[in-house]
Amino acid sequence: MSNTLSSTTLTNNYPSLGCSPTPAAPTSFSPQQRERLAYKPTLPAVLASGVCVLTHGEVLKPENDADRLKELFPSTFGLPTSHFTTEASSGNNASSSTISFKSSTPLRVGCVLSGGQAPGGHNVISGLFDSLKAMHPDSVLFGFMDGPRGLFKGNFFEITPELMDGYRNMGGFDIIGSGRDKIETPEQFAGAKEVAQRLNLDGVIIIGGDDSNTNAAVLAEQFEQSKLRTRVIGCPKTIDGDLKITGQMDISFGFDTACKTYSELIGNVCLDALSSGKYYHFIRLMGRAASNITLECALLTQPNVTLIGEEVAARNQNLSSVTEEIVHTILEREKLGKNYGVVLVPEGLIEFVPEMNVLLHEINELLASGTSATVEAVADELSANSAALFHYLPASIRKQLIADRDPHGNVQVSLIETEKLLAETVQHELHRLHKQGKYKSHFSPQFHFYGYEGRCGLPSDFDTEYCYALGYNAAALVRFQQTGLMSAVLNLDAPVSSWTCGGLPITALMNLERRHGKDKPVIKKALVELKSLPFKTFAANREAWAVGDKYRCCGPIQLGHYGDKVDLCKTLSLELKEQKESKKTT
Amino acid sequence: MSNTLSSTTLTNNYPSLGCSPTPAAPTSFSPQQRERLAYKPTLPAVLASGVCVLTHGEVLKPENDADRLKELFPSTFGLPTSHFTTEASSGNNASSSTISFKSSTPLRVGCVLSGGQAPGGHNVISGLFDSLKAMHPDSVLFGFMDGPRGLFKGNFFEITPELMDGYRNMGGFDIIGSGRDKIETPEQFAGAKEVAQRLNLDGVIIIGGDDSNTNAAVLAEQFEQSKLRTRVIGCPKTIDGDLKITGQMDISFGFDTACKTYSELIGNVCLDALSSGKYYHFIRLMGRAASNITLECALLTQPNVTLIGEEVAARNQNLSSVTEEIVHTILEREKLGKNYGVVLVPEGLIEFVPEMNVLLHEINELLASGTSATVEAVADELSANSAALFHYLPASIRKQLIADRDPHGNVQVSLIETEKLLAETVQHELHRLHKQGKYKSHFSPQFHFYGYEGRCGLPSDFDTEYCYALGYNAAALVRFQQTGLMSAVLNLDAPVSSWTCGGLPITALMNLERRHGKDKPVIKKALVELKSLPFKTFAANREAWAVGDKYRCCGPIQLGHYGDKVDLCKTLSLELKEQKESKKTT
Repeated sequence: MSNTLSSTTLTNNYPSLGCSPTPAAPTSFSPQQRERLAYKPTLPAVLASGVCVLTHGEVLKPENDADRLKELFPSTFGLPTSHFTTEASSGNNASSSTISFKSSTPLRVGCVLSGGQAPGGHNVISGLFDSLKAMHPDSVLFGFMDGPRGLFKGNFFEITPELMDGYRNMGGFDIIGSGRDKIETPEQFAGAKEVAQRLNLDGVIIIGGDDSNTNAAVLAEQFEQSKLRTRVIGCPKTIDGDLKITGQMDISFGFDTACKTYSELIGNVCLDALSSGKYYHFIRLMGRAASNITLECALLTQPNVTLIGEEVAARNQNLSSVTEEIVHTILEREKLGKNYGVVLVPEGLIEFVPEMNVLLHEINELLASGTSATVEAVADELSANSAALFHYLPASIRKQLIADRDPHGNVQVSLIETEKLLAETVQHELHRLHKQGKYKSHFSPQFHFYGYEGRCGLPSDFDTEYCYALGYNAAALVRFQQTGLMSAVLNLDAPVSSWTCGGLPITALMNLERRHGKDKPVIKKALVELKSLPFKTFAANREAWAVGDKYRCCGPIQLGHYGDKVDLCKTLSLELKEQKESKKTT
Repeated sequence: MSNTLSSTTLTNNYPSLGCSPTPAAPTSFSPQQRERLAYKPTLPAVLASGVCVLTHGEVLKPENDADRLKELFPSTFGLPTSHFTTEASSGNNASSSTISFKSSTPLRVGCVLSGGQAPGGHNVISGLFDSLKAMHPDSVLFGFMDGPRGLFKGNFFEITPELMDGYRNMGGFDIIGSGRDKIETPEQFAGAKEVAQRLNLDGVIIIGGDDSNTNAAVLAEQFEQSKLRTRVIGCPKTIDGDLKITGQMDISFGFDTACKTYSELIGNVCLDALSSGKYYHFIRLMGRAASNITLECALLTQPNVTLIGEEVAARNQNLSSVTEEIVHTILEREKLGKNYGVVLVPEGLIEFVPEMNVLLHEINELLASGTSATVEAVADELSANSAALFHYLPASIRKQLIADRDPHGNVQVSLIETEKLLAETVQHELHRLHKQGKYKSHFSPQFHFYGYEGRCGLPSDFDTEYCYALGYNAAALVRFQQTGLMSAVLNLDAPVSSWTCGGLPITALMNLERRHGKDKPVIKKALVELKSLPFKTFAANREAWAVGDKYRCCGPIQLGHYGDKVDLCKTLSLELKEQKESKKTT
């Protein structure tokens, strides 16, 4: 194996550090994977110039809890944003520093993949890798294995050029694996510090979602307080699209590919519904906490009914009103002779229905206080409203809620297949209308859940370029001794070479939330904004989509064929449009 | 609307024929759809030359039941195969006829989409359309609406150039809709004849699977016996891949796109399993009667376990031995520290398990003879073997079999979610081994079903070209007064321009099967051949795939980027290779 030598060398160099031999690169590739392996992403000009100028911008403050956050992050709170510029454009800005991208000494950086997979993770790592090697050919990138645990346990290996070349532009997180641990306990922080010190790391890059970036900020603070030279930089990863802040960090990676992958399938199902004319397809989409994925897929495919959790919550809708909304469309379509359609449902919809949360809370309390775990016993003791809702639920769901509880005895709302629940309540209502002669067709539902399919695909052109830039930029921030920042690549509707790069202080995205009886600093999730242009665009069109069949088939993602600009997802392009318009008016 | 004039004209021309106005072309397209709409398929040279030479080849005989079939098809049995050649290559063959592709009179042809959707249906129709218009600009293509019913009920409209241009290279069957009726009763045959006569049709093209092509042959026979001038040609459609005959008609359309669509998803799920390292993904694939789709997807993606129904039947495996096969792989993987994997299951697997068929038959008999429809009552009266199997089934499946029966009172095996059944029996067995200390991990399954997603996608390059050629060729066969043939396009591993075209007598594919107490002529389904190169290739590799992670991500289908030859699916390219090798040795 070509990489045996280097890993042996490294292992010998750090015999006591627990460094594993670098694994062999994969050997099994499809023709398309081989083609993509050879692809070279474009680099934004500010990073490609060889000379980097870092300018500090405004000091961003969190919207809420600034004082408490300052107490929690004494060393890293109140950092300014950072922006890379080219030498020429920097002028004589006093707050800027200029250095050659090339370094006289090698850099030593470790990276972690944290949480669920998202397409583009390998490109963040190849961006990091190429950036570090461009700074100094002897720079070393370590991969911490299987998530944050690899950092605090000291399980890692060196990412060699041979290994890296087996993962360029590939989907998956399999180069180093991922994991859902957090660095939380004092022992874990001590472990992370020890590993960083013994490996003499210049930087640690945490590639993850909101919680993982919160974790990156805490780690940065701890390292600063301990006067470690190791800098900590986060990279925004999540297919959920709920990690973003207007104009500062416009999108997390993976959302684009995931939504386009789901939309390919949704579009196909729409045409299938239209062609056979006999099924209602209920499609559940991954995304428990936010409906961003569902909104994006709706904008791309224009199905008949789309439920957005945030709207259901804002309207204080109950389950029967959500059901009626679907039934209304089915009846309208029946008038046009259409006994088919497509309904999109976000995975987490149930948790957005306010009355459902009350019911779940009541059941948990009853079971905890000794009520016997049967449907009848629970039903007897519920409040009137909750009892009515419980009764409204299909029998199978009632049973499931009582029977399948988690180790703490709580009902597991995540087990409920929302699309089947809704199809059952819809069927029940249609049956009632049928008896009254108000509905004549036969309602025949089909079910789909799209989730895992979208997390490890070959990254789209957008995610390919964006992730490479995020990684390349993250290493550059380490080179400039920055810490507690998230890698931020902006100006995304411009050609890739004109994308801007810099860092965003993570604490500026935080607020305090009560978790397990304690105030915890967390990054606020970016839910679907009902006043945003993406939602308003959807809302303005949904009536036309409900009855007319305006289905769009996005088709399979096409790779490497973009011209000047990569294709942005609808949500992002509408949000950028909105930002520009709001700048014009202010 | 641009097409109002022509449809009005036609409706006025045929006021008493029930001709509907041509609907408006769709207006809602994704950017990729728009790009594909403008794409022009390549035409095989034999059809593009403007002069057509039709040569008759050998008279193909069915493998079995030739005498009985001759009785059933007195006018159309024993037809020779037909091949188009160019003028130059035809020589002085006595059995060939040469005519200019251009016709002095317009042709009148109707087409039907029959059965489930398959990518490429619109290309068959655009091939037909362009072929007819190339023969004479005033030729007319009628679309019979919503399947064969449109033909015998006389529901149709003219396909205008404007309408056609809204469906070129698109997925779906929505231009005229599809339906699952057959033309079976004397009234239905009379209806079809009347419509063909009143519309003065030169030809009817039936685009469908094995049953629909059988139906085309019966219709051709009936039309011949009635001395109608209307010719009937079939086109081989089915994603199931079970309509083919070695060297005569190598593949049905839609199989290629469907398998590549599913394989994109399977590959993504494989990488997801590998990256997170904690789930066994059980993926059920559409295909009740044959496992061709599952085999193709396995060859493309190389998952850990693939079950092939035909092999299960050939080995006379029971459910517990299928379960043990999966468990064996899980245990082997555990030894390597791998607690994840991917299992492919054909939708129809259960029906291939011999003991399961016995059980289902017994249950149906018991319920028909008055046994009370409860799990306990049925269990009491089953034979010892069937009772043991019934007991082995998960409780939920036992209940479902007894409770959810079809209108005839029969158990509905199609409702069983095979992947969940197998995961439950596997879990049960692992639990037993766990108690014995022979399995230590936590088994965590995830479920997927891919079916509808693959039937209406944008056709792959192969299906785009193949379907267009099938349609163009079908019209040419009508021009040469051929009937009872299936459109056959061969030499598929050559560049598209060198594909050969002709017709295959449908009766040569038939045998007699006992259905509803009668001998019915049917086309024999092409099941997975355990001696074929595709299966042998799979069998030779599966042990390596089981424990090593040799996953391949095919990625999303790339369109319109092929060079000289289109990318063939694995099954087809291996079968063509095998054909060539067998020709060499004979």
